[in-house]
Amino acid sequence: MDQIWLFIAIAIGIVSVGVAIWLYNWVMRQDPGTEKAQEVASWIQEGARSYLAKLYRALTLVAVALGIIIAIVFSFDVSGATSGVEAYPLRGIFTALAFIFGALCSAVAGYMGMSIAVQANVRSATAANKDLNTAFRVAFYAGSVMGLAMVGLAVIGMSTIYLLTKDPEIVLGFSFGASLLALLAKAGGGIYTKTADIAADLVGKVEVGIPEDDPRNPAVVADNVGDNVGDVAGMGADIFDSYVASAVAVMLLGASFADKALAAKYIVFPLVVCMLGGLASLIGIQFVRVGKNGKPGDALNRGTIITCILLAALMVPMIFIGDYNIGVLWATLIGITTGVIIGFTSEYFTSEEFKPVKETAKVSGSGSAITIITGFSYGLVSIVPSIVGIVIATLASYYVTEAAGLPGIYGIGVAAVGMLSVSGMIVSADAYGPIVDNARGIAEMAGMDQHVIETADILDSAGNTAKAITKGFSISAAALTVLALFAAYAEVVQARGVELTISLRDPLVVAGVLLGAMTPPLFSALTMLSVTHNAFDMIEEIRRQFREDPGILAGTSKPDYVTCVGLAAQGALSSLVIPAFLAVGLPILVGLVLGPNPLGGFLGGAIFTGVIFALLMANAGGLWDNSKKYIETGQFGGPGSEAHKAAVVGDTVGDPFKDTAGPSLNTLITVMSLVASLFAPIIAMFHLF
Amino acid sequence: MDQIWLFIAIAIGIVSVGVAIWLYNWVMRQDPGTEKAQEVASWIQEGARSYLAKLYRALTLVAVALGIIIAIVFSFDVSGATSGVEAYPLRGIFTALAFIFGALCSAVAGYMGMSIAVQANVRSATAANKDLNTAFRVAFYAGSVMGLAMVGLAVIGMSTIYLLTKDPEIVLGFSFGASLLALLAKAGGGIYTKTADIAADLVGKVEVGIPEDDPRNPAVVADNVGDNVGDVAGMGADIFDSYVASAVAVMLLGASFADKALAAKYIVFPLVVCMLGGLASLIGIQFVRVGKNGKPGDALNRGTIITCILLAALMVPMIFIGDYNIGVLWATLIGITTGVIIGFTSEYFTSEEFKPVKETAKVSGSGSAITIITGFSYGLVSIVPSIVGIVIATLASYYVTEAAGLPGIYGIGVAAVGMLSVSGMIVSADAYGPIVDNARGIAEMAGMDQHVIETADILDSAGNTAKAITKGFSISAAALTVLALFAAYAEVVQARGVELTISLRDPLVVAGVLLGAMTPPLFSALTMLSVTHNAFDMIEEIRRQFREDPGILAGTSKPDYVTCVGLAAQGALSSLVIPAFLAVGLPILVGLVLGPNPLGGFLGGAIFTGVIFALLMANAGGLWDNSKKYIETGQFGGPGSEAHKAAVVGDTVGDPFKDTAGPSLNTLITVMSLVASLFAPIIAMFHLF
Repeated sequence: MDQIWLFIAIAIGIVSVGVAIWLYNWVMRQDPGTEKAQEVASWIQEGARSYLAKLYRALTLVAVALGIIIAIVFSFDVSGATSGVEAYPLRGIFTALAFIFGALCSAVAGYMGMSIAVQANVRSATAANKDLNTAFRVAFYAGSVMGLAMVGLAVIGMSTIYLLTKDPEIVLGFSFGASLLALLAKAGGGIYTKTADIAADLVGKVEVGIPEDDPRNPAVVADNVGDNVGDVAGMGADIFDSYVASAVAVMLLGASFADKALAAKYIVFPLVVCMLGGLASLIGIQFVRVGKNGKPGDALNRGTIITCILLAALMVPMIFIGDYNIGVLWATLIGITTGVIIGFTSEYFTSEEFKPVKETAKVSGSGSAITIITGFSYGLVSIVPSIVGIVIATLASYYVTEAAGLPGIYGIGVAAVGMLSVSGMIVSADAYGPIVDNARGIAEMAGMDQHVIETADILDSAGNTAKAITKGFSISAAALTVLALFAAYAEVVQARGVELTISLRDPLVVAGVLLGAMTPPLFSALTMLSVTHNAFDMIEEIRRQFREDPGILAGTSKPDYVTCVGLAAQGALSSLVIPAFLAVGLPILVGLVLGPNPLGGFLGGAIFTGVIFALLMANAGGLWDNSKKYIETGQFGGPGSEAHKAAVVGDTVGDPFKDTAGPSLNTLITVMSLVASLFAPIIAMFHLF
Repeated sequence: MDQIWLFIAIAIGIVSVGVAIWLYNWVMRQDPGTEKAQEVASWIQEGARSYLAKLYRALTLVAVALGIIIAIVFSFDVSGATSGVEAYPLRGIFTALAFIFGALCSAVAGYMGMSIAVQANVRSATAANKDLNTAFRVAFYAGSVMGLAMVGLAVIGMSTIYLLTKDPEIVLGFSFGASLLALLAKAGGGIYTKTADIAADLVGKVEVGIPEDDPRNPAVVADNVGDNVGDVAGMGADIFDSYVASAVAVMLLGASFADKALAAKYIVFPLVVCMLGGLASLIGIQFVRVGKNGKPGDALNRGTIITCILLAALMVPMIFIGDYNIGVLWATLIGITTGVIIGFTSEYFTSEEFKPVKETAKVSGSGSAITIITGFSYGLVSIVPSIVGIVIATLASYYVTEAAGLPGIYGIGVAAVGMLSVSGMIVSADAYGPIVDNARGIAEMAGMDQHVIETADILDSAGNTAKAITKGFSISAAALTVLALFAAYAEVVQARGVELTISLRDPLVVAGVLLGAMTPPLFSALTMLSVTHNAFDMIEEIRRQFREDPGILAGTSKPDYVTCVGLAAQGALSSLVIPAFLAVGLPILVGLVLGPNPLGGFLGGAIFTGVIFALLMANAGGLWDNSKKYIETGQFGGPGSEAHKAAVVGDTVGDPFKDTAGPSLNTLITVMSLVASLFAPIIAMFHLF
């Protein structure tokens, strides 16, 4: 029976990818607009392509090198297995291939998503000239290309590997490949996008006083490319990574069941949930339509809610058909509900309808320092409801599963998988945002009508509304995923006969926790310092162009966009070296020196501060952004007032918080947890202390 | 023999207090200056006294109420003791009395320190008219009053209680009293000082354009009062609290030794170290002298280094005389060395001689947003060396003690006690800072000569130099102290026969850690939001005064200082309610609901993020402050430039970071750890899960 589910999962994965390809072609058939618009779009397409080409080239080297290491290391029989872990000669090769396959799937999904995003932006802008509904569909369907491709490839990849090897630890290699790519794509894209954004703003808006998205600004193309590489490709890779990691964690937890028949069944279960979630997403996407006078934001949220309800509806019969324990149904429902609730509470802190944004906007009249202190403080407060929500979800899914007779920890993982199984829909709604943001930029740069820009604005603000829920999903899902991975790490170590308590009464564990806890702040700092450092290089370049060719500002000659795009790409890639080492090297180092228990502490510490800083940075950033927007609606003096100037400072501080440092942290802690689990067999055998 | 040490400790404590009283009178005998200066000083004295009176009145209520609860709760035989813990009828009364006694000692030391600080400022300013040397001595000796009184009272209190009861858990009550007072004094003082500072600056400097410390500003007295209540009284209470807590933690760890004769000896040992540290401080203070052309900053650092060396020199014979295990000598030395090293590394991030401050100053030319991002990022990086230092100190002191045949965890506590035993000297050097800062303010307000202000500036910058080391001491000592308290909590619980592993594989423990980890950020946010909230009330009041009496700005009528002082005091006190509940109520709540293991996780979580946020906030704040000062020396455009304006924003953001939120976190985690240990016997018996 389990075999059959795997084949069905692969079939649904293929359908997903098929629909993605169909949507890709549908979007490509839409009107690409005027020649001017196409030219502008082509600059962005070219920039995005050249960045991804560079990124993937660098990645290929890293992936092949790491793949060889993995192949060699896992070819030795280091398993030391005492229970249930088989060692066989091709294990190293299989793990390495799975690793490369994981990176490849993630790369293909990201590449598809971005290729269509940079085609959809101009088509959406062109359609906005006629009606909002078509413009919305173009953008949303383009977003769906990545959502569906991602989910489809992930399910195909995991199911195929498990079918062939019957070893969840090999699927771990697949997950590690996907996550490593996600980390580099997300952090690199985050650095890229804010480097270009800050440089373009500081010289353009502040020094020479030209508006945002003005084609005279040499960094304007890099800025728009940044939206695509950071928000589309990066975000897609990010959710791909959580999606796969949560499923793998649950597979590993299932594999640890004492009863082997039960284990076989519950190893496959997460893939069944992913399959149902994929199906639900395919259907849910059909409901995302804007009627006459309909609001695009409501349409996106409706799609998400319907997908969640569908998943729940599909789960109930599946529990009976598959004869699964009722506990996992409850855990799935707890996961879905928590995602939605945390999404709405995070909206409280970042929406202009509630106190935090209003209050921050109000105090901005007294200067930017007060804006920063207030926004930062609310960001700190915003940690509380999410953490409480995660705690309740963790304990509830643990105890319902335990009460139903399965190990409770398995339920925590299932809650994460439940949340993430609807990723197809979530990513679609999320990728929509940067596409319409770009559409607006193209409309501005190509000199389209004012009403096109207004329509684009409506579409844009819908993206922000949808973001609240999707963000809540992604952070809480990442938290539950890493908690499940943490448990999976413990199981992998215990399977080697090493007792693992990770007791805080052991000073080595406390040392591990402290070292782990400092890693996310350090990682954030390194990426943010890269942003300002790279932005300064680009500022010099923009100034040089303005200085050497006065025709640029006069509008008579075209600025050299390519150099700025190249600078941003080069800067982002070279900034990734140390962060990547932190993510991959530090857990291995801590494990080999301090041992498996302290490494567990290290993971715990990284998870705790990682989640806290991710929440702080995402919410404070969103809050500052919307405080500025709130003032721009005419509140507290409106645009140009002292309050507005202060709010702009808040927004600029918030940009790298929410788009560079914050979102990479989810991926960082996932990568560290996966590295630890993957190398656990070696660490369990060799360690200094 | 142990009895004799206790009597000697009490004797040295009495000498300490005696010298403090003698120095108090010496300072009072100095020239109080011109009538104008005395009038200005009297406003500050009056404001400080009225605030402390209000604070202590509120505290008396809280202390009596809590005291009664403690007396009742501990009168029942809830000990459930299975080993070594005696239950006797008067336990409740004794614990309650010890609690009140602890709060009282801390209050008396703080009150003495602040009373003399507000007398010394005007005397130091007056002496500065003649020579730097006398001005320095007045300020430093006034600082020593608090340092010596504090250490003396702490040693007397702890030794007496232990002599009378022979029960370290009763001394825990003393420590809890001291810490609760410290928390309120530190957080309240921090809110008070930054409320007045921000309000005075925003209206004075920004709106009406009068200089800092201008007597026409109605908030100027509140601002100077703030320096005293925040930096003198608050800081003194803060170190008092770590000092006592570390000693008590080690006493409890000693009490848990299986061999009862050995236990008796090692319960007293921390008091012996405190006694030697007190002696070393008494001698070290004599070496703080400024020769002709000598630098006051060097004099302060010399005093600290000599005191540390003296302590080490006294420890060696004591180990032989008392026949103590050699491991504790090494642990003490590790503690002292770590404090000094962490102090110097934290200077790297906050001194204008190194890259972080220079780089932040440099990028300030591009606007305040970049200043904030850069400074915040360096603040995050600054966590790393301190955490690595704390980890090394923890493991090293653990293993040397373990290797020498004592439980390693005892060594961690001894390292903390070693570091803190020289608090007499540390506090003296630290309290010197705000006194000379105030002297400068009085010189300005009383219209003294320019050369007096210049001398005051030299004295002031010496305070900042000394601060680097003392800050390194206080943060690393607090970290080791809470780690020792954490271990002590475990011992207290285990003494009740409850198995305590605090394993991160237990989901309830993970839930506890997550809840604990969110508490320090929440606490920081609440205190910072109080600052901005209260500052707005005061801004309204200042504007009202300027509006209703134009004579104030013209310099013809005196502003109403008293209302501003009252507003700051009222605001600070009412802002303490929720933070105080968090500190005392939340650990008890978590313990009673989730149980002793998750409460251990909760403490761990609070310690991890507490230390990280304390380091981040202290260092980022110091870095922004000195970046501004660096620009004011003429770098990157100097005062009035765009870079300077941006740096001022950084400095204003950093103020509540380093003076309100950051320093209270040490105390918060100490209070939470003490509450947990104190209520551990009850929690071990009654809990929901």
